[in-house]
Amino acid sequence: MPHAHPRPATGPAAQVDAWLSDFEHALTTRDVERAAELFGDVSYWRDLIAFTWNITTVEGRDGVRDLLRATLEVTGPHGFAASEEPTEADGTTTALIEFETAVGRGRGVVRLRDGRAFTLLTTLYELTGHEEPMSERRPRGAEHGVRPGRQTWLEQRTAEFSELGRTRQPYVLVVGGGQGGIALAARLRQLDVPTVVVDRNPRPGDTWRNRYKSLCLHDPVWIDHLPYLDFPANWPVFSPKDKIADWLEMYVRVMEINYWGSTTCRRAGYDPTTGAWEVVVERDGEELTLRPQHLVLATGMSGRPNIPDVPGRDRFRGDQHHSSEHPGPDAYRGRKAVIIGSNNSAHDIAAALWEAGADVTMVQRSSTLVVRSETLMELAHGRLYSERALAAGITTHKADTLVASMPFRTLPDVQKPIWDAIRERDAGFYARLERAGFLLDFGEDETGLGLKYLRRGSGYYIDVGASELIADGRVRLARGGVRELTEDSVVLTDGTALPADVVVHATGYGSMTGWAAELISQQVADTVGKVWGHGSGTTNDPGPWEGEQRNMWKPTRQEGLWFQGGNLAQARYYSLCLALQLKARQVGIPTPVYRLPEVHHRS
Amino acid sequence: MPHAHPRPATGPAAQVDAWLSDFEHALTTRDVERAAELFGDVSYWRDLIAFTWNITTVEGRDGVRDLLRATLEVTGPHGFAASEEPTEADGTTTALIEFETAVGRGRGVVRLRDGRAFTLLTTLYELTGHEEPMSERRPRGAEHGVRPGRQTWLEQRTAEFSELGRTRQPYVLVVGGGQGGIALAARLRQLDVPTVVVDRNPRPGDTWRNRYKSLCLHDPVWIDHLPYLDFPANWPVFSPKDKIADWLEMYVRVMEINYWGSTTCRRAGYDPTTGAWEVVVERDGEELTLRPQHLVLATGMSGRPNIPDVPGRDRFRGDQHHSSEHPGPDAYRGRKAVIIGSNNSAHDIAAALWEAGADVTMVQRSSTLVVRSETLMELAHGRLYSERALAAGITTHKADTLVASMPFRTLPDVQKPIWDAIRERDAGFYARLERAGFLLDFGEDETGLGLKYLRRGSGYYIDVGASELIADGRVRLARGGVRELTEDSVVLTDGTALPADVVVHATGYGSMTGWAAELISQQVADTVGKVWGHGSGTTNDPGPWEGEQRNMWKPTRQEGLWFQGGNLAQARYYSLCLALQLKARQVGIPTPVYRLPEVHHRS
Repeated sequence: MPHAHPRPATGPAAQVDAWLSDFEHALTTRDVERAAELFGDVSYWRDLIAFTWNITTVEGRDGVRDLLRATLEVTGPHGFAASEEPTEADGTTTALIEFETAVGRGRGVVRLRDGRAFTLLTTLYELTGHEEPMSERRPRGAEHGVRPGRQTWLEQRTAEFSELGRTRQPYVLVVGGGQGGIALAARLRQLDVPTVVVDRNPRPGDTWRNRYKSLCLHDPVWIDHLPYLDFPANWPVFSPKDKIADWLEMYVRVMEINYWGSTTCRRAGYDPTTGAWEVVVERDGEELTLRPQHLVLATGMSGRPNIPDVPGRDRFRGDQHHSSEHPGPDAYRGRKAVIIGSNNSAHDIAAALWEAGADVTMVQRSSTLVVRSETLMELAHGRLYSERALAAGITTHKADTLVASMPFRTLPDVQKPIWDAIRERDAGFYARLERAGFLLDFGEDETGLGLKYLRRGSGYYIDVGASELIADGRVRLARGGVRELTEDSVVLTDGTALPADVVVHATGYGSMTGWAAELISQQVADTVGKVWGHGSGTTNDPGPWEGEQRNMWKPTRQEGLWFQGGNLAQARYYSLCLALQLKARQVGIPTPVYRLPEVHHRS
Repeated sequence: MPHAHPRPATGPAAQVDAWLSDFEHALTTRDVERAAELFGDVSYWRDLIAFTWNITTVEGRDGVRDLLRATLEVTGPHGFAASEEPTEADGTTTALIEFETAVGRGRGVVRLRDGRAFTLLTTLYELTGHEEPMSERRPRGAEHGVRPGRQTWLEQRTAEFSELGRTRQPYVLVVGGGQGGIALAARLRQLDVPTVVVDRNPRPGDTWRNRYKSLCLHDPVWIDHLPYLDFPANWPVFSPKDKIADWLEMYVRVMEINYWGSTTCRRAGYDPTTGAWEVVVERDGEELTLRPQHLVLATGMSGRPNIPDVPGRDRFRGDQHHSSEHPGPDAYRGRKAVIIGSNNSAHDIAAALWEAGADVTMVQRSSTLVVRSETLMELAHGRLYSERALAAGITTHKADTLVASMPFRTLPDVQKPIWDAIRERDAGFYARLERAGFLLDFGEDETGLGLKYLRRGSGYYIDVGASELIADGRVRLARGGVRELTEDSVVLTDGTALPADVVVHATGYGSMTGWAAELISQQVADTVGKVWGHGSGTTNDPGPWEGEQRNMWKPTRQEGLWFQGGNLAQARYYSLCLALQLKARQVGIPTPVYRLPEVHHRS
């Protein structure tokens, strides 16, 4: 098939133009075989709802063929072009691209090796005819001219807020008003999808406010922007929890989100005959039933405290609480504190207790990935998210697109050298920690924090100071499982008794699937299956390989049920995907889902 | 003096480089004569605190000589360079420039004609050693490491807020928490100058919230950004009052401003022996005395309602109020409303009353400048403040600098052709208005709205619909002065009686000098003299020519007393000037003021 052979081309720009032109020709002539031939032997095509109305990655030419056979006719892709000057490094040419489909506009990234695609990212960012009212399309605010009986902006907002959920049903109900829920709600408002967000806490930001007082974001500011409104240039690198809480509260107001605080979601059920949910909520003590078409659980990976059922918990006479309910150190000066767990919260709480003059022991139950915050910023984030990146023209949007463009299968090879460098750079630090008895890991395949996060969402500490306390023994370290609690101590499996006035269970959180079981039913939870992880076959992320975060931001096996979550960066980036999927359904754009995943795991 | 002759140069960039190099050489060799020779016969140098620690414009070579003789030695200017590619049009080469002084860094604009400066703008934007903590200098938020007894961000904020004004005196007290006061306070916080803002209303933004319900900003969003935090791309073109109010409230929180709501300033006096003010405020019913070094009146050009003392005001039995207290139209359906005045508020209120079904008469007492909002945006603002401008690379900051670079003396010549074009474009509209009896003007010298604003701050309506109501008689028009009010009517000087159920006095506002008299003393008000206007010799702006807004954002004849105000654009731009002047004084940088103005007028 000589026509499928990539044209010779010199220079990155010419190479990319030639490839895009061949690709477009293959697509517009519906020549699946030719399109597949444009991909390398080892190749990946990641699609975010542009072709597949799903978030999915196919591999190799067979994968490309399969995807295109299922989606090409409906998608009608065309207009492929590089959106800025392509670059070349180490034999790989990288280009940011744009294109259109029958229903919208897309962006993406293609990486070419030897003239064929190594990776392709395609993402839909806008539905034709439903463009967001922004910039040159921004609303007028004041309608000029005279209109008897007109309502002011405030009157309209007030009316909408009081009607929605009472005399008018929202199209989408978002349960959980943290960054994930409100980022999605902001997108949906822009897209004119009637949405209500409910949260059990009174004020937006309370999920942050209510945490232990020393909490700061561990990701630096450049990664943390919410949609539409960047943090200002005077915002701190690491947001203190109360400051980020204020920002979220402000964001809800500025983005005109219909946010119901002090509202607890009691139960939800889907009625397949009406295609709507019936969701019972308690709002300021009043029970209300909402009937949205779509239910989004944005309850967070850290929404359901998990305390292992250790014998003797009811016998212990001191204070004990889950890390999410830790009140801060002030009451524990001179007291004995035992912290069970060794991830972020455990370390933060240990350091704050030590600073306040408590006698602190941390119980490490299993190995932990530790990385110094400075090192992480410089070696892992800095290239894409930093002042340096901004100065080099890498906007947050561009960085997000580049991150999204790396298929999950390729991430270990990309990450491992970075983590080798991190370990080398901080070798002395790690040696001191190990000498103190701390059990370190860098992921089962030594690929570091990012992958550990994407696989299991836990198992690490980004060091902002506590590790030195452990290294020099100021915070004592104990290792092993917890056998029981007595009246005044924590007893480990080896029999060691740790005297305790306060026990902090920094033992992590239950799964998002658990929320589905609790709010809807075990049956629906089982239908949906595991949420998060991508089938890497490592601890807490069993295979088979899925290649995308399970059930996140995309259709699930339960009609009308969606999961939104992740860190601020994911809340920002994937909220657009999810919002567009909901908008398309609202306005009746066909959304045939390619390859809805099989369910292999129940929680 | 051949050495003073500008070097021949070709191309805008070479021309600018040559001029800057000659200018710098003249300045560094302290050769005032040579520097003066680099200016044209007709030329202007506008300086914002870089050379003069004042906001002042000198004219011609004599002016340049005078300025340099007084300031050159202390200023120590150097490092002049174009900061982006100069442009040339109609024989004028324009360049954005940067430079340094002995104490800080500056920016500006130079315009060359025939190799000599026609205009020069020099502005100081940063004090060396007191750079704002932004971008690569932004605060860390979390201090890494362990520090016994450390305070969290919230604890620090809470302590600062409760101590300032009680156990610790602010360096600056800002009276008035509108956009002017809080923009300045945000700058001062960045510069680490302890500041308290007091406002009589409970919440930031209330000055907007409390106005008539249909109020929207008449300036489009691109002109209205506050420092540090731009409105997002989905913000409306014309901000509704309650939305801008919410933004201001959010801004105060995000910028960590020490804002005392529900606080009325009772009286203030300056003690020259201590160099501090004694300011008595009533805060939530409690009387407190503050002792700041500097007192900033940011009480606004629209802070003190002015109601002419018309006979019979106490006899009138219907509702009557100043436009600033107009409650909105809802209670006046089917009622007779008479609005005295014909500027922005009068028109807005008239239209809203008519829309609500009132019978409305507007009393025009003198001629008014009217311009259609669309036309104003396209012909006056669009080149610098619009999506179009942004797409052409003209950021808000660049637009602000270019606006500032036009000396006041040159503005009439620049503005008149724009207003000729506006009148031509909307000739039909203006003819209809005049046929309805409306008395139009375009400024005494037909130079339009911008200059009318800078001269007297009043006398115009930006039409968003009301003019059509007047043109076709739906809102009735009466002309002339008001002789008296009776029990149920407004009687004009020609004897016409206008029956009225409600009278709205849209009669403008008292001067900012009036605030000084009210809060401090008549003597201090007289010492300071007139605030606003620049001596154009037109109505309400008597000469002699001053060439800058009187007493605004710069030293006054009263030590430690400053005025901050203007529209959002001025609040944004000039707040930096004022903040740097205060910062320099706080840290003891010498600030010799060149040409503190003579006081010619008392109010």
